[in-house]
Amino acid sequence: MKRRQFLKAGSVGLAAGTVAAPAIAQSSPEIKWRLSSTFPKSLDTLFGASESFAKFCSEMTDGKFQIQPFAAGEIVGMPQALDAVSNGTVEMIHGPGYYYVGRDPALAIMADIPFMMNARQRNAWLMIGGGLDLVNEYVSQFNVYTLPGGNTGTQMGGWFRKEVKTVADLQGLKFRIAGLAGQVLAKMGAVPQQIPGGDIYPALERGTIDAAEWVGPYDDEKLGFAKIAPFYYYPGFWEGAPGVSFWFNKAKWDELPKTYKAVANSAAYHAGMEMTAKYDARNPAALRRLVAAGAQLRPFSQEILEAGFKASNELYDEISAKNAAFKKLYEHCRAFRNEEYLWWQVAEYTFDNFMIRSRVSASGAPAPR
Amino acid sequence: MKRRQFLKAGSVGLAAGTVAAPAIAQSSPEIKWRLSSTFPKSLDTLFGASESFAKFCSEMTDGKFQIQPFAAGEIVGMPQALDAVSNGTVEMIHGPGYYYVGRDPALAIMADIPFMMNARQRNAWLMIGGGLDLVNEYVSQFNVYTLPGGNTGTQMGGWFRKEVKTVADLQGLKFRIAGLAGQVLAKMGAVPQQIPGGDIYPALERGTIDAAEWVGPYDDEKLGFAKIAPFYYYPGFWEGAPGVSFWFNKAKWDELPKTYKAVANSAAYHAGMEMTAKYDARNPAALRRLVAAGAQLRPFSQEILEAGFKASNELYDEISAKNAAFKKLYEHCRAFRNEEYLWWQVAEYTFDNFMIRSRVSASGAPAPR
Repeated sequence: MKRRQFLKAGSVGLAAGTVAAPAIAQSSPEIKWRLSSTFPKSLDTLFGASESFAKFCSEMTDGKFQIQPFAAGEIVGMPQALDAVSNGTVEMIHGPGYYYVGRDPALAIMADIPFMMNARQRNAWLMIGGGLDLVNEYVSQFNVYTLPGGNTGTQMGGWFRKEVKTVADLQGLKFRIAGLAGQVLAKMGAVPQQIPGGDIYPALERGTIDAAEWVGPYDDEKLGFAKIAPFYYYPGFWEGAPGVSFWFNKAKWDELPKTYKAVANSAAYHAGMEMTAKYDARNPAALRRLVAAGAQLRPFSQEILEAGFKASNELYDEISAKNAAFKKLYEHCRAFRNEEYLWWQVAEYTFDNFMIRSRVSASGAPAPR
Repeated sequence: MKRRQFLKAGSVGLAAGTVAAPAIAQSSPEIKWRLSSTFPKSLDTLFGASESFAKFCSEMTDGKFQIQPFAAGEIVGMPQALDAVSNGTVEMIHGPGYYYVGRDPALAIMADIPFMMNARQRNAWLMIGGGLDLVNEYVSQFNVYTLPGGNTGTQMGGWFRKEVKTVADLQGLKFRIAGLAGQVLAKMGAVPQQIPGGDIYPALERGTIDAAEWVGPYDDEKLGFAKIAPFYYYPGFWEGAPGVSFWFNKAKWDELPKTYKAVANSAAYHAGMEMTAKYDARNPAALRRLVAAGAQLRPFSQEILEAGFKASNELYDEISAKNAAFKKLYEHCRAFRNEEYLWWQVAEYTFDNFMIRSRVSASGAPAPR
């Protein structure tokens, strides 16, 4: 075991040192890559991060590092994207790790799991807290290297046909929700349903399902749920800060000239920052329009949040007991989160708190409810 | 007037179009620049953004676009830095606009003014909300072009020798605080003092001043105020999200090859994102150490926050009445803020709220007070 580990580590280090450095790094070769997004073009902010990443890389290399982004399904569908980048069918993909939770729950932690942290904290964990190194150490088994590629910010809790005030109201509720979040909701009594985005509206309309979660105001507005499932709950406690990743085929990444690696690195952070800024800039007006169209904003009750937190922690303990990779990533992430909120409650939270309470008097505008 | 404006606009457009595009843009010339930071090296996270910016630019251009960062005072001091970049003594500087509020209060808005917004909102305003374009239109009179260059997040309210519970407790209080924040505090009854960073400790120790604000836990810890002015107030309502900028001499910026402009652009966002991540990652442990060293955390009372908000809005009305540039930037920024907090109170804030309340049970660790 030790010998194999040594050989494996040695060969990786050798590849990075010899292939990338001398001949290629000094030049600026023409490189053409294909990027398969896991998002449709209709999710323009999520898909847009791939377009921005490609644009930044091209502009920084005078058009020599060309990446063509494809929407989900154009080359491969979302479910096959991880395989496609692993085996080199495409050089890179863009999507959240939790799409592949069925392969290993540990993949969810690099994106988000219920009751974890907010977007700035997640970024601090990845960039400074050692999170990204740990993620890359773990995902190397899939023959990929990853960089952070944006965050939607805290999502909404979804659209419900009827109000849910207590945990009792969740019993038997058919809820379109996937992954670890679905497992948490199942522990709380709901019945998770997996339905593709395009089929949610008719299912909600007919009452085949009782509720569905999607993203946040800007993306949700396009689907028109306000008319058929008007109770719009928050926060999406299972997605406090879903992080999307750029995934590179490991061999293709290692072959890149050093300058192109640096270009891709800054382009990824720049595109990711822009994604969050777009959501932050677009969600307020979308929320206003949704409320005007009949959406009724409802916070999840303390009872539901506490039950969700308890169910999540139970689930994490169960998975950790049998999955060492999950345990390692989860415990690292959780420890960072707990320290983060120690500080967050002091300056950031109290500033936001006062600004929210002052908003009506400052703008003369009515609060959303 | 109109003719002069036309000529001025025309010549700038011409320079950008002809100098930057054809010959130089196709090549990768060796360019060596000097960057004068407005920060000392002891403020390593703030100064570090210049080092990271330079590193990213070098790595992305195979060492051809070289920027050497200097600490405040090595070439020019902080007060002279804006002039130095305006007249081309240095090609670029790094610092917050509010350092030059004495020249024009409008310069503060590109950094931060009391009771404005949080770091993600400010970034959304700059990147997507049209803020950066408006800022650059305004600062072109100083012969500069700017890019966002990081944010500290909400700062602390500073160190006080005695508790301040009411506005009455602020009367005559000698408070080391500068800029528009100082003017707001003066309206509230305090007496703003301007003292260089290195002189604060003896002034506080002797009682020459009663209070001093600096940055946040990580930077404050180095100055040792906990021993002599133990009441550590929050939030720094005058700095909800101080944004630092990279400022480029306009002619030097326009001369850059297109590829280097793209490199500088992504490098600036990357370095800025890293700065915020560093603060977010480093502040929690520093806060713990400060509390262990005797710091007593105190929230500003609702009475003080409300008086500060009222005084700020009065000040903004007074400045707006005589300064059209300030009025234009302020009203744009304020309108964006008001919309942002409409949305923020829904998903982001309620998620943070629950996570903060759950923190003790999740970690088993005591809250900081």
